[in-house]
Amino acid sequence: MELQPPEGISSRDKILWAAATMLGEEPGAMMSVRAVAKRAGVSTGSLQHHFPTKRALMDEVIARVYDLIIPADAMHDTSIPARERLVACLQRLLVSAGADPRDAWRETFDRYIANEPSEGARAQYLASERELHRRIEYCLNTLEDEGALLPGDNARRARILFTFINGLSIAQALPSDDTHLPTEIDALYAVADWVLSQ
Amino acid sequence: MELQPPEGISSRDKILWAAATMLGEEPGAMMSVRAVAKRAGVSTGSLQHHFPTKRALMDEVIARVYDLIIPADAMHDTSIPARERLVACLQRLLVSAGADPRDAWRETFDRYIANEPSEGARAQYLASERELHRRIEYCLNTLEDEGALLPGDNARRARILFTFINGLSIAQALPSDDTHLPTEIDALYAVADWVLSQ
Repeated sequence: MELQPPEGISSRDKILWAAATMLGEEPGAMMSVRAVAKRAGVSTGSLQHHFPTKRALMDEVIARVYDLIIPADAMHDTSIPARERLVACLQRLLVSAGADPRDAWRETFDRYIANEPSEGARAQYLASERELHRRIEYCLNTLEDEGALLPGDNARRARILFTFINGLSIAQALPSDDTHLPTEIDALYAVADWVLSQ
Repeated sequence: MELQPPEGISSRDKILWAAATMLGEEPGAMMSVRAVAKRAGVSTGSLQHHFPTKRALMDEVIARVYDLIIPADAMHDTSIPARERLVACLQRLLVSAGADPRDAWRETFDRYIANEPSEGARAQYLASERELHRRIEYCLNTLEDEGALLPGDNARRARILFTFINGLSIAQALPSDDTHLPTEIDALYAVADWVLSQ
């Protein structure tokens, strides 16, 4: 029997619950609005009221999933130097998968690179990329608000930092002369200093 | 019948020719000094005179291969602004594979990530990583020598830029909202400016 949404939660949360569950059951599937609404026990009209587009729904689901994996951080703790907080923000994304980096990349590879990804897989990848960009941008905005970072195009900075994190992550899966950790932390500090010295 | 080394070239070049040919015939194979010497038509003593370690041989072969793929550049042309030359230097590494990025990553994945790579494959990967680091470092040293870049740890800078290039390269193979090129060039200028403004 299919799992049912928890009792006593709002329609919006029922929808998110249903979409997250379906995503867990069949990653890469292109969820239909109708199927998500049915699973949530709400009308498609109600779903479309809360989430006018499928992308809006996907983004919110992915954000919730990341909230579980990467909990709210200490970005606002100004007793910690800005560079330490920025490094921690980036490092959290890097280790978020938790698993063996080679396993993680095997999965990414199978899902998106080995063959042309399905429409559903593409949508999921793009939603998770947007969410990771947003998380880095949030860290940068926090530092900018408190004056630790010069005002600038934080969306662009976030995009570039994300690229860098991806480079570190694929390096973890590729052959290496030494353990990655010291080099990786050194690299994270170097890019944090680049951003903060702008 | 096996190809023979060209006539009239030095022992050193015969050895490099043999090693490069064998690498092309069987990528990822761990070449034995004896087999390379035999193929080159030189004694193992002669090989070891020119290349005291297998790593020295591998590095030189990989450097020659990259010389063919990525020809000598305009790094010394001071009529071109430093940032343009640095971007060109990095971009050259990014597009060096030439092929479809998804195909290129499929090959990298099969060789190094899908399974524990063989000793030969590891040695080849590490040699090509060292060569790419060296090429970036060479660009940075050139800019430092002419005063366009503040003196600093160029090996470290090169390592970080290489990580960034790897991130851009894997992004080319992953799903994307738009064409990569404008974002990529923007990102290359951003990191070039970061390095040059240090």
